[in-house]
This record gives sequence, C-alpha cells and structure tokens, in this order.
Amino acid sequence: MPTAPWRGFASDNYASIHPEVLAAIAQANAGHDVSYGDDGVTAALAEAVRETFGAAAQVFPVFNGTGANVVALQAMTRRWEAVVCASTAHVNVDEGGAPEHLGGLKLWTVPTPDGKLTPELIDVQAWGFGDVHRAQPAVVTVTQSTELGTLYSLDELGAVVDHAHSLGMTVHLDGARIANAAAALGVPLRAVTTDLGVDVLSFGGTKNGAMLGEAVVVLNPESAPGVDYLRKTSMQLASKMRFVSAQLLALLTDDLWLRNASHANAMAADLAVRVIDLPGLTVTRAVQANAVFATLPADVTQRLQERFRFYTWDQATGEVRWMCSWDTTAADVDAFAAAVAEELARS
Amino acid sequence: MPTAPWRGFASDNYASIHPEVLAAIAQANAGHDVSYGDDGVTAALAEAVRETFGAAAQVFPVFNGTGANVVALQAMTRRWEAVVCASTAHVNVDEGGAPEHLGGLKLWTVPTPDGKLTPELIDVQAWGFGDVHRAQPAVVTVTQSTELGTLYSLDELGAVVDHAHSLGMTVHLDGARIANAAAALGVPLRAVTTDLGVDVLSFGGTKNGAMLGEAVVVLNPESAPGVDYLRKTSMQLASKMRFVSAQLLALLTDDLWLRNASHANAMAADLAVRVIDLPGLTVTRAVQANAVFATLPADVTQRLQERFRFYTWDQATGEVRWMCSWDTTAADVDAFAAAVAEELARS
Amino acid sequence: MPTAPWRGFASDNYASIHPEVLAAIAQANAGHDVSYGDDGVTAALAEAVRETFGAAAQVFPVFNGTGANVVALQAMTRRWEAVVCASTAHVNVDEGGAPEHLGGLKLWTVPTPDGKLTPELIDVQAWGFGDVHRAQPAVVTVTQSTELGTLYSLDELGAVVDHAHSLGMTVHLDGARIANAAAALGVPLRAVTTDLGVDVLSFGGTKNGAMLGEAVVVLNPESAPGVDYLRKTSMQLASKMRFVSAQLLALLTDDLWLRNASHANAMAADLAVRVIDLPGLTVTRAVQANAVFATLPADVTQRLQERFRFYTWDQATGEVRWMCSWDTTAADVDAFAAAVAEELARS
Amino acid sequence: MPTAPWRGFASDNYASIHPEVLAAIAQANAGHDVSYGDDGVTAALAEAVRETFGAAAQVFPVFNGTGANVVALQAMTRRWEAVVCASTAHVNVDEGGAPEHLGGLKLWTVPTPDGKLTPELIDVQAWGFGDVHRAQPAVVTVTQSTELGTLYSLDELGAVVDHAHSLGMTVHLDGARIANAAAALGVPLRAVTTDLGVDVLSFGGTKNGAMLGEAVVVLNPESAPGVDYLRKTSMQLASKMRFVSAQLLALLTDDLWLRNASHANAMAADLAVRVIDLPGLTVTRAVQANAVFATLPADVTQRLQERFRFYTWDQATGEVRWMCSWDTTAADVDAFAAAVAEELARS
Repeated sequence: MPTAPWRGFASDNYASIHPEVLAAIAQANAGHDVSYGDDGVTAALAEAVRETFGAAAQVFPVFNGTGANVVALQAMTRRWEAVVCASTAHVNVDEGGAPEHLGGLKLWTVPTPDGKLTPELIDVQAWGFGDVHRAQPAVVTVTQSTELGTLYSLDELGAVVDHAHSLGMTVHLDGARIANAAAALGVPLRAVTTDLGVDVLSFGGTKNGAMLGEAVVVLNPESAPGVDYLRKTSMQLASKMRFVSAQLLALLTDDLWLRNASHANAMAADLAVRVIDLPGLTVTRAVQANAVFATLPADVTQRLQERFRFYTWDQATGEVRWMCSWDTTAADVDAFAAAVAEELARS
Repeated sequence: MPTAPWRGFASDNYASIHPEVLAAIAQANAGHDVSYGDDGVTAALAEAVRETFGAAAQVFPVFNGTGANVVALQAMTRRWEAVVCASTAHVNVDEGGAPEHLGGLKLWTVPTPDGKLTPELIDVQAWGFGDVHRAQPAVVTVTQSTELGTLYSLDELGAVVDHAHSLGMTVHLDGARIANAAAALGVPLRAVTTDLGVDVLSFGGTKNGAMLGEAVVVLNPESAPGVDYLRKTSMQLASKMRFVSAQLLALLTDDLWLRNASHANAMAADLAVRVIDLPGLTVTRAVQANAVFATLPADVTQRLQERFRFYTWDQATGEVRWMCSWDTTAADVDAFAAAVAEELARS
Repeated sequence: MPTAPWRGFASDNYASIHPEVLAAIAQANAGHDVSYGDDGVTAALAEAVRETFGAAAQVFPVFNGTGANVVALQAMTRRWEAVVCASTAHVNVDEGGAPEHLGGLKLWTVPTPDGKLTPELIDVQAWGFGDVHRAQPAVVTVTQSTELGTLYSLDELGAVVDHAHSLGMTVHLDGARIANAAAALGVPLRAVTTDLGVDVLSFGGTKNGAMLGEAVVVLNPESAPGVDYLRKTSMQLASKMRFVSAQLLALLTDDLWLRNASHANAMAADLAVRVIDLPGLTVTRAVQANAVFATLPADVTQRLQERFRFYTWDQATGEVRWMCSWDTTAADVDAFAAAVAEELARS
Repeated sequence: MPTAPWRGFASDNYASIHPEVLAAIAQANAGHDVSYGDDGVTAALAEAVRETFGAAAQVFPVFNGTGANVVALQAMTRRWEAVVCASTAHVNVDEGGAPEHLGGLKLWTVPTPDGKLTPELIDVQAWGFGDVHRAQPAVVTVTQSTELGTLYSLDELGAVVDHAHSLGMTVHLDGARIANAAAALGVPLRAVTTDLGVDVLSFGGTKNGAMLGEAVVVLNPESAPGVDYLRKTSMQLASKMRFVSAQLLALLTDDLWLRNASHANAMAADLAVRVIDLPGLTVTRAVQANAVFATLPADVTQRLQERFRFYTWDQATGEVRWMCSWDTTAADVDAFAAAVAEELARS
C-alpha cells in the first residue's frame, strides 16, 4: 500500500479536512475564549442551527458519532426504556457496544432487507408497553442515509415518525450522513428532520468534511431532557469547544455541507454507472447516497485491494463497499473504475 | 466583558491553539489516510511516546481528559473494584459523575490538606481486601500537578506508587497538567511517570497548547488490558485520528510541551510574586505549577471580575483561582497584577 | 377468576412451595447462624453441589433467575465483551433489560426456529474478533430446556459447547428449568452440564419447587472470576443465606429435583396427548419438557381463559402456552383437557 | 466456635425467622397464585402499607436492603444526578459498590461525627446546581436508625427533610432498621417517615424477624417514577412474590414489627447498662436503638470473640459492635455481660 498521500474508496472517514473548515479553525484561534461552549463561535453555531432546523432547535457539539448517538439516546430514555433499531444500525453493530456497555441502553433490533425501518418493522419490537418484563420501547432510531447506502424517501421517513409517535415513542435520527441524504433528496436539512417530526438528530460533520465534530441537535426539547449534563457525563464536552463549533459552523456556511455531500453522492453515482454492467460484478444495493455495494469474484476483490483501499462488507458473501467522499475526484473514479474493469477482465 | 479577542486568568482551557500545533494539523491534511489510528501520524506518535516514556509505553489518543481518565480507570479495574482518590480529584468533583454514571466506577475519596495523597492517606480507604461488602480498592489515582496547583515531589510520588504497589494496587496518574509538573520539577516526562512506576497516565494535551487531544499512555501493559476496546466503547475513538495524533506529536516535538509548560509556570510564579505582599490578599496554596490561589475581599474580587475573567474556587471562603497558560504574556501579568493592586487599594 | 386456592397452567412460577422445601426452611430456623453464606447449611449445599456437578463446582446462591444470569454473565465477560444468545432467550426478552441496563452487557441475538442455538447459528454473530468496533463475542448462553419448551439433546448441546470453545468463547447455561431437561433426557444433572463442558450454570430452584432461590454454579472457575463480589454488587447476596441454601439443598436431597421435574414433564406430555388430535387445535412446538404450546381459535382461547389462567404467548398468531409444574395433578390435566375439548366443540 | 445452634451479638442478620413470619409463609402456600405480585397476599400487604404509611403509599417488595436502596435511588435520580449521604452510610461502605457499579449512581459523601446528616452537613455537598461539571445533587439519603446505632430525633429528621426539599432535592430513608427507630422514638412508623415528608423508604424486614424481604415504599409517587420497572431491571422482582409479601405483612400484623424492635432495643439498652461502668471499657456511641459500640483492650476482645461471635467495627481503634435482635434473650445478655466483665477482670 502507498505511504505517500494516496486515495481510496474505503471510507468517508479517510478523507481530509475541507480547506474552509481548516480555515474556520484558524480563524477561531484568536486570543482567549470561554471554554465548554460559552464562547462566541458556539453562539454563532447555535444561531445557524436555528436557521437551519427551526427556532426550537438546540445544538450540542460533541466529538464523534458514537458520542452523539449515545448522548442522544440516553437523554431520550429513562433507565428502564429501550430503543428500536434496524439490526444493521451503526449503534448496534459498529460502536463496540458503547450504547449497552456505557450507556446502559437496551436495543431492540429488527432485521430489515435494506437497512430501513418501516411502521410494520417497528411493530416487530414495539410492543409490551406496560409489561415490566419487557424493556419498554421508547425510541425509534433510524439512520439517514443508511449504513447500506440507501435512503428513506420523505414519505417513508414521515411514516416511520408518525407511527412511532402514534405509539407514544420518539424518534432519533442518526445523521452521520444526513447531508448526503438531504443532498440526494434535493431538500433542505430541515425538510428531512424537523419538518417530518424527528425529535433528536445526531448531526454528522466528520464525514462531511470536518476534522472531527458532530452535534446532538434537539428538535423537540421535551423529548430529550438533560443533554447538557449527559454530554459531560458521556465524556463528550470539549473544553476548547470553539474549535469544534467552528467546524460545524463552516459546514453550515455558504452551503458547504451541501456542496460536499452533493459531490460525494455524484461520485458514487458515477462509479456505479461505470461498473454496473461489467460482467461478473453485481451492484447489490440501490445507490442512493455516497456508497456503492457490489459483489464480485474473490480473486478480483483481492487484486483490487492491493491497488486501492476498500472494505469487504460481508465476509460470507464477498460483498464489498466503496465509499465516496467530499474529496473523491472524477479522476479517482476514473482510475478505480478502470481498475475494476481490468481486474474483472483478468478473472 | 469584552467580545473582541481578550485575555484572562480563568483557565488554561481558555487558551488558544499553539501555532506549531495548528501547523501540524494542516500538515497532516494531505490526501486520504486510514481512519481509527492505523495512519502514519499515529504511528509516528507511538514512536515519540516510546522515546519519551520508555519502550513499553503504548499510546491511545482520545478526545478529552475525562475520556482519558474514564477509559484508563475502566481498564485498570474489574467490575467489582474501586479507585482511591483525593476528594478534590478532578475525577471526583469535575467530571459530572462520568466515572460512576458511565464507567460504573466506585471512587473511595480521601480528604487531603493540599490535594495530594500520601501512603497514610491511601490507607484511609485502602482496606477490606477480600471482603465482598467493600468495593475492592484496586487503583490509586493521583493528579500531577494537582487541581490545587500543588506538586508531588519525585520522592512523594514515588512513595505513593510504592505504597500502592505494596498493597497490590496499581497507580493511575491524571496528567492533564503533567507537562507543568515535569517542567516545574525540571525533569523529563518519564522521570515523573515511568521511572517512578506509574502504571497508566492520562497525558494532557489540551491545556498544554493543543486544540483538543489527550492520550491514555499505558506504561505497564499488564495493568490495563483492553484500552483499545474501552476507548471505542467509551466514545473516545476518533475516526480521523491523524489530526488528534498530529497535535500530540507536535507537543512532543522540539520540546514544545516543555516550552509551553515552563512559560505558563513562570507566568504564575511571576504573578504570585507580584501580589503576595499586597495588603488584604493572601496566597493560599503553594504556587508550584501554573496556578495561583488567593483570598481577597469580596468587593475586590467582584470589581476584578468585571475587568478580567477568573473563577471563584470556593464560594464559602471567597478563594479565587488564577490560571496561567502557554499564551499568557508578561504584559497580561503586568496588567492583571496592577489591577489587583489597584482594586485592593480601593477597598 | 377464583380467589380461593385454584389451579392453572399459566406458569411454573404460579406453583406453591414443595413441602420438603418448606420443611427444610423450618429446620434451618434454629438459633443464630452466620450471615452471607458462612453458615453450615450453605456449606452442606456446597458439598451437595460438588457431588452433583463435580469436585470443581462452586455454588453461589442468589435470589432469582435474572439475578443468576446477570451475575454469571458479568463474571464471564470483561467490560468490552458480549454475549451471543437466541433472540428468544429469557435474558433478551424477559428480564426488563437487566443485562444491558444494570449489567452493561451487550447481547448479540440470533433468530432461531426453535429457541436453540447451533454451531452455525452461533457463527451468525460470533465474528469480528479483534475488531474494536465490534463488541467482542465472548460467551454463548443457551437455555435448557428452552423458553419454547424444547430440549437440546446431549449431542446438540455438546456441539454448541465445543464450537464455542473452539472460538475461544465460554458457555453459560440458563438452567431455570435444567431439572426438567435432565429429567426429560433421563440423565444426571452433571451429564447435561459439567460433562459437556458447560462453564457456568444458572441453576434454577424456584420453578422446581422452591419458594425462591437459584444459584450461580461455576463449573469452570477460570471462566468466571469474581462471582462472589459480583453477587454482592448485583444485589443478590442474601444476608440470612441459610434459608436460601436450605431450599436448594432440599431439592438436591433424595432426588427431589428429579421427582418434581419428572412429574411436571409427565403432566405436560399427558396434556399434549389429550389435546393433540382435537380438531381446530395445533400443538406448535415439540413437547419435550413441561410446556405445551398450541394454536387454537381466538374465541376458544378467550373462553378457556375465563375458566383457567394461562398466557397467550404470541398475540400475532394466537399461540398459547400451557405450563405444568411439580404440583400439577392428573386431575388438573383431566379438567383442563376436558375444558379445551368442550370449548373447541362449541366453536 | 459452636456448630450446634448458638447465640451471638454479631448482627441482627444472624437471627432466625420469627415464628409468626414462618407461619405466614406456610399459610400463603396454598394452591396456585399469580406470580410477580398480582396475588392476594401482595394486595393485602399493599393495603396494610397504606394503613401504616398513608393512603398514597405504594409498596414494592424486594429481596434485600441493597436491592431496595439501589432501586429507590435509581428511581429518584435521572442519569446525571447524584445522592448526598453520610460517608458512613451503608450505601457507601457496605454494598460492594452496587450503587455505582450496577446503578450508575454517584454518591456525594459527607463525614459526620455520628452517622447523622444535618442541614449544614448536607450543604457540604449540595451545591453546584446547574453546573454540568458537577453531578447534580438530587437526593439526600439518611439511615434511621443509623449504622452507628444512633437515632435522628423527629425534629432532627424533619429539619433534614425540610432542608433537602428547600433545595429542590428529595429524601430517601434507608430503613433497614426503621422499626428499631420508631420503637425507640415511641411513635408510629408514619410519624418518622410520611409525616416528616420523607419521599421514599427502604423498609426493612430481614433484620426485624423476616426470612428475607424488604420493600421500597414510595410515599411521594412524584419523586420516584418507574419503581415497578426498576425493580425488575435491578433483579429484585420475586416470581413467587406472595411469599415475600407474606413476611412483610406478618411484620405489619398485630404490631409484630414493634414487638420485635422494642425487644431488640431493650436488650441493647440492658447490655449497655450492664457494661458501661466496667473499668477498661468505654461505650463509644449513644445507645439509641439495638446496637452497642464500645472500645476495650485488644486481648479482651480476642478472648471474648472466642466465646461469642461479634465484629470489630474499626480495626484502627479496636471499637467493637454488639448487635441485639428480636431473638436476643435476657439470658443471652446475662451471659454475655458476665463474660465481658470476666474477661475485663482477667486483663
């Protein structure tokens, strides 16, 4: 593998910091400022978040996505309550057990065909209300765009929210890639969150071009008391918070979030187009955001991984995942698609 | 209070990012790199940490000090064990209950005159070994320099470590200001940690000039299994870790840690000298690192706080804390000391 | 519903205390005795457990089955590890989230056709060893007899244990109804536990005729350090323990466990025979222990529930569960089977 | 030490079951009954508790005192809140860390001269409201009678409750020996709980003559939501609950609680009178309930412990504790007091 600066399709976490974000950090680096969020940059972020998500929205910057999710879900549940999620949800499979081990959270998992919950799938686990033997379903968490690169349409997500609310449950949205979702749907961020009735959002910055920084955005304050305290007890309170806030603010400035996400989505769409008809390769998931999932012969995967970094998603089936990011270039896609074709031809 | 860039003595967390640290972040921002720590910058940091702390030292970058402490103490204890600390320890009083609420840790607290444990003070809580009714004392945690601006001498800290080890306990050092301690003692970092037998260190970067970044440094690997897993479950694993590692590496490069800490210490010493003989003011703690604690008339404190930001440490006694940081200037000290004298004279 | 003493098929927890157990409590009620387990009755129980399960077996009496499971699974896992179980396991669905909420445990659940894990089903979740993003699979827990009234054969259970061990995992057996299982298999208790390599057993007493009392039985001491401490921290340490131990000892005396379990199993088998050919009724699970599961028309269920207490197991399908216990009589079965036939005939 | 039935002064947990309690268990042992508390005995207990503590009182039987305390304190706190207690409180020193390890609770401990909190002592820790860095003080827990055998007068306890309420905090009373306290004060149980404004009570049965059984009694339902769920998640829900409820009901029947407690108190008072003037012995605490604390020469303690079981309370000072229970007889006191005198005379 290369040691000098290189490119790959492994993860949108492999991407660099967008120059506008880095500039915003440098700009915030003037003199002293109050720590733990009582600074001017964080105040400006709060204003930008209200403009973006509505007047009731409250923003709590945190360090990473697992932190955002665990803080949010703790706030949304009492000690005896539980969270319904797709079994492929990041909170279930990719957070090392943080929700259970540290947060003491119970997840009720539901198998899904495409990483997306529906009212019917929620009902698989949302029952037993009032029965002390059953950890009480209190929150539905959905990921948008999903871990499988798929997208809830506005109608689909609205139906999930309405169903959860009809059961007396609240809705958390894991938005590590909410920017990609809104960009793909062609709507403002609030159209896919506040306007549908989502109660709390984990707003992703890192995958969207930040250095590190996410936020718990509380859209319905009644649904999530104590986020300020829980951010601290969950080790997510930055002392020099201005530098986290500056990053998130940069993403919300001049639609940087949208520019970055649209570009990543476009690169994935382009990559899919370039490979979808290649013999021996099957695109396995709808390409709706910035990910392409595919199956191809094992030897092809192996040779490709010697040339470009990417992950095998499912060892059993050989399915691979190719992620595009804000800094994926058309040349990257060209080179990679050509390599895929080349290695398939050798197979 | 001023809204433009301003200066104060409230906290070393109010300080900005040192230019060399910011430059290191920018330098790391080239192309793609592997996430979660398998990158070249983190590898270079690991090497620098081994050079600094000894060949066995393992470094696990995390986001903040509470995170470092809670990860370390979880790794050092089994589910039924407990941690002995001074009742003034940051883990006890300033982490929002994170050790207990999220880490499930039991703290056995000991009142101390100066924030420092001794073998005798450890014995106040380190007993009942083998008694299932008593949460088993397994770790002693000390803070160096302490929350009260005081310092363990090498002999004092060595005695604490030896005593803990003689009881079968291990030692954690909360080193949010370990740089200030080593600088004040005039010794290398390993002289105040590894060489004394400290088992695990929370290595502070943020207060020493970083933007955000600390590390769990395991000096005795047998004492702390699973830090890699616990960092993830404790929501402290940065995806774009190269940018956290770059900051810590910058601090370890060209003795930046030492330059920053020595300067902060010198500013505090200078401030103490400037105010210690003022009538009506008492310096209440030995000024051994970068903090000055003092008592002065309430009206003086109030007028001073209208001019400069700082915290009242103890509402009951009126004791205040003045912190110096890497970016405190001689002019800052001049201006502040003059203001103190002026307001005292008006009193 | 009746208010005077009555009979039903709702649960083996509805049963009374076996007279020999009550007599053992009364017999232990002589003078003072050391609390928390350092008493003679508990010593005698320890000896009986060694005779029953092998010389290495250690017994830790606790209050209830959830307590036994949560204590055992905490002891068997480090803070970052996880437990593989059937999605129908009691630890997953019927303990109010105790494993996650209080124990901080992560469960990796696997859908099964009959409540039983197999090596292949274990592999659905037992992967990702060494990956910090995945809560590390460390323990397989199985229930014998299962929550669905089914039974692992010795070969089936042995294969599960061997597979878990081959993966470096240990095996916990939830034996709330282990007596029913051993009785049904016609083997001693150790044949279905120790001899197969099970590491830790939750040994059930309550459903087998006790008033209240279960035990964590550690068969492989290396697999479960700290059970003595974890029993206390998990609020499962009885002060007047002699009275819990006396109950468990009574069950192990003169094969009372076997007499009670065999009787309950026989009653269930008899009930199944009496209803299996009734038109409109389908027995839905293999009747291998003391439970009969069946589907029948909703109106029949409703009328039957006005006459006898029992639970609808699955609201969606209308499947009901009929449990027999040590105190179910042939007359109870007669009366109930007749009522089932009668109500079906009215349908 | 004797192996046949014997007597001692080690703990009120060494006592046997009162015959009326055992009879109540036997009486409840008729036919089937609904599990988990929906039985007639538990309904009768609920009625007795309302008569005893007031119409709003809700009773939740649990297994042991640690369980009662941890369930109650979880219900009374949100995830980020904390509990103020005396540093000698059972929840702090004698529960193996259950509150922190399993309950995730933070305790703010206060040194006291006699195990009793006062408004002033509460203020030592009850501050920092609204500061996210400080685990928020939300509950004051007091023990009555205390772990040191002392007693809050009604005025003293009322002042504690009023002060806590004035701070917006609620009050939990650890009543493992509430019967001894009410008996000593000569008042009904509600006079020392409900009438003073105590919000939640851990009602002790085991030390008062039960086999095993305590209860969370919620006096102010708004202060403790979810006790029914938390009892389950805390592994404290008895399946055959009628047999726990029967014990508690027996204690509330015909003032058995009062007879038992008054007798134990009288025995302690008598013992104190018999030894207080012996040369070489000092009674170290006010004897206000059923405990006598004393210091005496080490060799005397050693010889006495070869004849009677009791505990050294403080290894440093040699202070011993002698507990009387419902089944301590005048002859026991005679024999023991004589032995004390005899061994002191030999010293």
